[in-house]
Amino acid sequence: MKDLNKMFKPDSVAVIGASNTPGKVGYIIIDNIISGGYKGKVYPINPKSGEIQGLKAYENIKDVPEKVDLVIMSIPAAFVNESIKDCGEAGVENMVVISAGFKEIGEEGAKLEEELVALSKEYGINIIGPNSLGITDSHTPLNSSFAQMMPPKGNIAFISQSGAMMVALLDWSLTSGIGFSKVISLGNKAGVSETELMNYLAEDPETAVIICYLESISDDDNFVKAMRQTTAKKPIVVLKSGSSNAGAEAASSHTGALAGSDLAFDTAFEQSGILRVSSMAELFDIGLAFSKAPLPEGNNVAIITNAGGGGVLTVDEMERQGLKLVQFDEETKEKLRKGIPEEGSVNNPIDVLGDAPVQRYKETLDIVLKDDQVDSLIIMVCPTASADPDGIAAAILEEREKFGKPILVVNMGGPTFEAANHALRSHNVPTYVFPENAVDALAAMTTYAELERREADSCIDDLDNIDKKAVEEIFAKVKADGRDTLLGSEAYAVAEAYGIEAAPIKLATNADEASQLAADMEFPVVLKIASDKILHKSDIGGVKVGIESEEEAKATFDEIIANAKKAHPDIVPDGVEVQKMMETGQEVIVGMIKDKQFGPMIAFGMGGIYVNLIEDVSFKLANGISSQEIDEQINDTKVSELLKGYRGEAPCDIDAVKEAIKRVARLTLDFPEISELDINPIFVYENGSSALDIKIKL
Amino acid sequence: MKDLNKMFKPDSVAVIGASNTPGKVGYIIIDNIISGGYKGKVYPINPKSGEIQGLKAYENIKDVPEKVDLVIMSIPAAFVNESIKDCGEAGVENMVVISAGFKEIGEEGAKLEEELVALSKEYGINIIGPNSLGITDSHTPLNSSFAQMMPPKGNIAFISQSGAMMVALLDWSLTSGIGFSKVISLGNKAGVSETELMNYLAEDPETAVIICYLESISDDDNFVKAMRQTTAKKPIVVLKSGSSNAGAEAASSHTGALAGSDLAFDTAFEQSGILRVSSMAELFDIGLAFSKAPLPEGNNVAIITNAGGGGVLTVDEMERQGLKLVQFDEETKEKLRKGIPEEGSVNNPIDVLGDAPVQRYKETLDIVLKDDQVDSLIIMVCPTASADPDGIAAAILEEREKFGKPILVVNMGGPTFEAANHALRSHNVPTYVFPENAVDALAAMTTYAELERREADSCIDDLDNIDKKAVEEIFAKVKADGRDTLLGSEAYAVAEAYGIEAAPIKLATNADEASQLAADMEFPVVLKIASDKILHKSDIGGVKVGIESEEEAKATFDEIIANAKKAHPDIVPDGVEVQKMMETGQEVIVGMIKDKQFGPMIAFGMGGIYVNLIEDVSFKLANGISSQEIDEQINDTKVSELLKGYRGEAPCDIDAVKEAIKRVARLTLDFPEISELDINPIFVYENGSSALDIKIKL
Repeated sequence: MKDLNKMFKPDSVAVIGASNTPGKVGYIIIDNIISGGYKGKVYPINPKSGEIQGLKAYENIKDVPEKVDLVIMSIPAAFVNESIKDCGEAGVENMVVISAGFKEIGEEGAKLEEELVALSKEYGINIIGPNSLGITDSHTPLNSSFAQMMPPKGNIAFISQSGAMMVALLDWSLTSGIGFSKVISLGNKAGVSETELMNYLAEDPETAVIICYLESISDDDNFVKAMRQTTAKKPIVVLKSGSSNAGAEAASSHTGALAGSDLAFDTAFEQSGILRVSSMAELFDIGLAFSKAPLPEGNNVAIITNAGGGGVLTVDEMERQGLKLVQFDEETKEKLRKGIPEEGSVNNPIDVLGDAPVQRYKETLDIVLKDDQVDSLIIMVCPTASADPDGIAAAILEEREKFGKPILVVNMGGPTFEAANHALRSHNVPTYVFPENAVDALAAMTTYAELERREADSCIDDLDNIDKKAVEEIFAKVKADGRDTLLGSEAYAVAEAYGIEAAPIKLATNADEASQLAADMEFPVVLKIASDKILHKSDIGGVKVGIESEEEAKATFDEIIANAKKAHPDIVPDGVEVQKMMETGQEVIVGMIKDKQFGPMIAFGMGGIYVNLIEDVSFKLANGISSQEIDEQINDTKVSELLKGYRGEAPCDIDAVKEAIKRVARLTLDFPEISELDINPIFVYENGSSALDIKIKL
Repeated sequence: MKDLNKMFKPDSVAVIGASNTPGKVGYIIIDNIISGGYKGKVYPINPKSGEIQGLKAYENIKDVPEKVDLVIMSIPAAFVNESIKDCGEAGVENMVVISAGFKEIGEEGAKLEEELVALSKEYGINIIGPNSLGITDSHTPLNSSFAQMMPPKGNIAFISQSGAMMVALLDWSLTSGIGFSKVISLGNKAGVSETELMNYLAEDPETAVIICYLESISDDDNFVKAMRQTTAKKPIVVLKSGSSNAGAEAASSHTGALAGSDLAFDTAFEQSGILRVSSMAELFDIGLAFSKAPLPEGNNVAIITNAGGGGVLTVDEMERQGLKLVQFDEETKEKLRKGIPEEGSVNNPIDVLGDAPVQRYKETLDIVLKDDQVDSLIIMVCPTASADPDGIAAAILEEREKFGKPILVVNMGGPTFEAANHALRSHNVPTYVFPENAVDALAAMTTYAELERREADSCIDDLDNIDKKAVEEIFAKVKADGRDTLLGSEAYAVAEAYGIEAAPIKLATNADEASQLAADMEFPVVLKIASDKILHKSDIGGVKVGIESEEEAKATFDEIIANAKKAHPDIVPDGVEVQKMMETGQEVIVGMIKDKQFGPMIAFGMGGIYVNLIEDVSFKLANGISSQEIDEQINDTKVSELLKGYRGEAPCDIDAVKEAIKRVARLTLDFPEISELDINPIFVYENGSSALDIKIKL
């Protein structure tokens, strides 16, 4: 892991390209560093000037009398790499390259960027950028950015892949009372990646939550395993653009990145414990909650409101988000009844009525927070004639001290709540204008708390009965034949080698062999012409089902070969495949989609001919998949209801399904040359399962 | 329709319960009326005082020397009804009852409210309330409310069922630059309903859009037909709380209303052309767009942005909302290329780059708006160092004048855009902080524009081959028998009477009859014991399929009767039903769910045994259903893909399905006594269809 501490806490900073001309980037950066209150040494570097903004300037970084901790580079792209060499020779270890004109402008820039990456490795320099707007650390304090504002101090770290979006969101956050620990403009991510920064921030005591705007992920198929450890330390909330097809297309033209599918991103984020949001407002709503409130211990929520309708809207959104409404017991209700008039409600959501004075809010709060069932609380205040927002805020702060539970406040209105919102937020109580936003934030916290408790075993690492060598041999033979698709008998052999239960398929090259294989399998069997060149096998009489005897098998072999020759005189078939006919079970599919970015992604769902219509499929990335995730994957589908025994039918062997998923995951990870794998259907029985049709393409 | 003009444009207003004591409701109302700038006559009514707030007070409304147009009532609940009588005698026609203490406090209040309703009818007084916070009209101007603020003048009418929520939203709107024509607090809706107000506002020239917060709908099963006409005149956007199960429960305890199911609300809103939103922010985002921008002519959107990532986020949300990204032709791209540097993008979303000066925005805008393909435009501005928000706003206003297309502006940030947002909004260009909100608003406008073009025929009013009398007779017989469930043969007879194609089922009471009926139907047939008391008919040998001859039918009749007697010696069966065996077709279901509020709701979807698991069902309310809606209903399901001929299969007779839906809708409307109706399956063939199993319960 890169040590990025001096990137954010440098004892000295040099600005290469420092300027005395107001409005120039090299001027603004020096100005921002000084006016931002940076307490270390600042060295302007500029070949022309003896003094810049009152500081002694140096011609070259190598002239600076001490080793500089951080360099901010802001000179034309053409000169950057030469300057990086100087920095490397001067022992610089951390750098932010503000200069644009690299990959983002096309081929020529991309070449420069490649050189930059090579130099950063050669000299061991951590480089953020190029094309970054800079970084700020409000605790150091250091504003080394080209942006016009130093964000308010706080404990939210904000990473943005777009400089323009970063500036926009910081500008907006000025009106919302949100504080930041660090703000990082990633630029082209040529050197330090977002995941390296996340790892660093996860250990940063000044950061409570990491929020990110991302357009691509730098990391590859190890992302899930690596990030799972990071998210265990700190919540990470990501807005990743390009979730739609058209959006992904626009994004790839914008960032020049070859993006994986959005489904894979969703899956990768979910498996790694990253919370993905779909709007900017959500990014901040959720960041705010994590930055202020403790994590809830469960998903049981209480609501206190002075407007019944607001309580109902809160419940509506809670149901959408999977949060639970606490059902108070009689004891709690009895206590509540003492303070709340009859027209109100002591059932959750608690309606303290529009005329509620501060005292009624305070007493209710106390009773509710004391109730062990309650994991978290949403308090809503409408500006009725009797409402005293400031008094209620004070009561909340007082009660909050007594209990460690998260409280989210919905102050529904504008100017009336300005003072109350300020008081609450500056004492670590998150406030929202509308209930939906508070619920979304609370749901994210609850999800994160659940993820933290999740068990991440490595269930596919220690499977028995795996014969890797057998599969290697099969694939070698397929490649040697100049084919890319496995015959049914080969695919069966692969399944067998990886312990995937399947209906036996063997290849017979003559009639006697067919008869013998059939007898070994037990009747009835199916005979099928074996050739990857003959597509519509049934249409030409290349498939015969229900063969019941050795004699029949022998005769059928000849018949099928004859039919094939007649239909395709030019094709020499590989022989005839003999497959055991299995009794029908519940049909499921297990398949693999190869994602460009994250590698094999396992699909599980309802099988049968209408698979694509019903779309009852759930996905997980193979790499690092855990037992719990496989359970979730199965339970996410409707077919799981059938497997469990729908409407009194006998339950199927779900363990057999899990085993099949594990082994397919292991197979596709062990053999990256598998480009497609599809088992449809697998018959699942009361005991065991059997893969009927296995398609493998290399 | 009630004439509510004098409610909002009265020449004189009397306040019953007017007070000289600051802080009292009767004081605040008089104060609000005067300080709100009301130009008509104001009459305080109070038995004690000679003068109130400088105005001559009267002891009783009957003492006022002229007929008063509007009365605001604010006296204790116990005295309200007596006072209404006085008003009625004084010729008052419009009234707002602020007084609380009616239905919302329980039984006693409910009685008072019933009296109030009776009096309002007796005297012909339009009453808003009771328990209303009052009404305001910013154009009259009249602020007769108990709320502390007169909202800014504008063209949005806002109706709220909750006073507290109304105050909250008005408080919030003060920070958002939204203007209102009328603000109406509905209170308990004892007199004037929200639909009556919507009808009035639809004709109001000062109102461009109606936004509502509702907890219940007063109107009954005529809602869809009535509202369709209203929404054709003006867009109506509704936030209806209680969409979740728990929320609906909380809502019904809060409003005391017996609410219909939320699914029925969704369907009713959609069929009536009302736009339903699920959050408060959306209510105002969408209201703002309607209030400022013209309607788009189609769903083809262009995007101009100075931050590539923002464009991608916009596209992501557009795809979620079903909006289309215009694909520019070469001509437009060529024009765009002249002004946009190579690193930008002339493909939609157009990226004018972070360094875009005002002129580049302006030229791009001009080219894009001129393109006939473009129906609407979203312009995004991030506060980059080069961005000039005010200049861009001026350019937008100038270009907007030339073309009549809707332009929505996303000014991403806070303080930087204050002046620009003000300039744009005050010249009727809606502005948003985040792209998602602009897209949601534009999607709502596009949906509304489509709804306006929708054809609403009355396709179930003029069906031929309907024999209502036959059904009446069957139902009379069922009732006379003391049953509530129809026998299969009776259900078939009902289907036949309403022209619903079904597999014939006839009741045989002896073996000869069974044999004759079977012969008439053509073999093969099914024989089934007829009794609503025998539930598991197959288990006791009460069902025999594949009967091929008259003799077999005869023998089977006796066998079934014997089996039934053996299993249930105490039950006298109605006989044996003979049903023609039909060839298998694509299975669909048509059913009816009776909604408490909106009456029969027709379900259509995939048939078969896993109906409840697959949940491929779409709903429409029967009342007023149009041909276009039936098409939508079918197309909303996955089974429609099968009906159209999935993967090369022959298409099924979709017209037959439509006919079945129409006739079931008509049947359930004609006979409100039908409590349940379920046809599962209907076999659909290449030509025609056949209902196999029809269940009807009264």
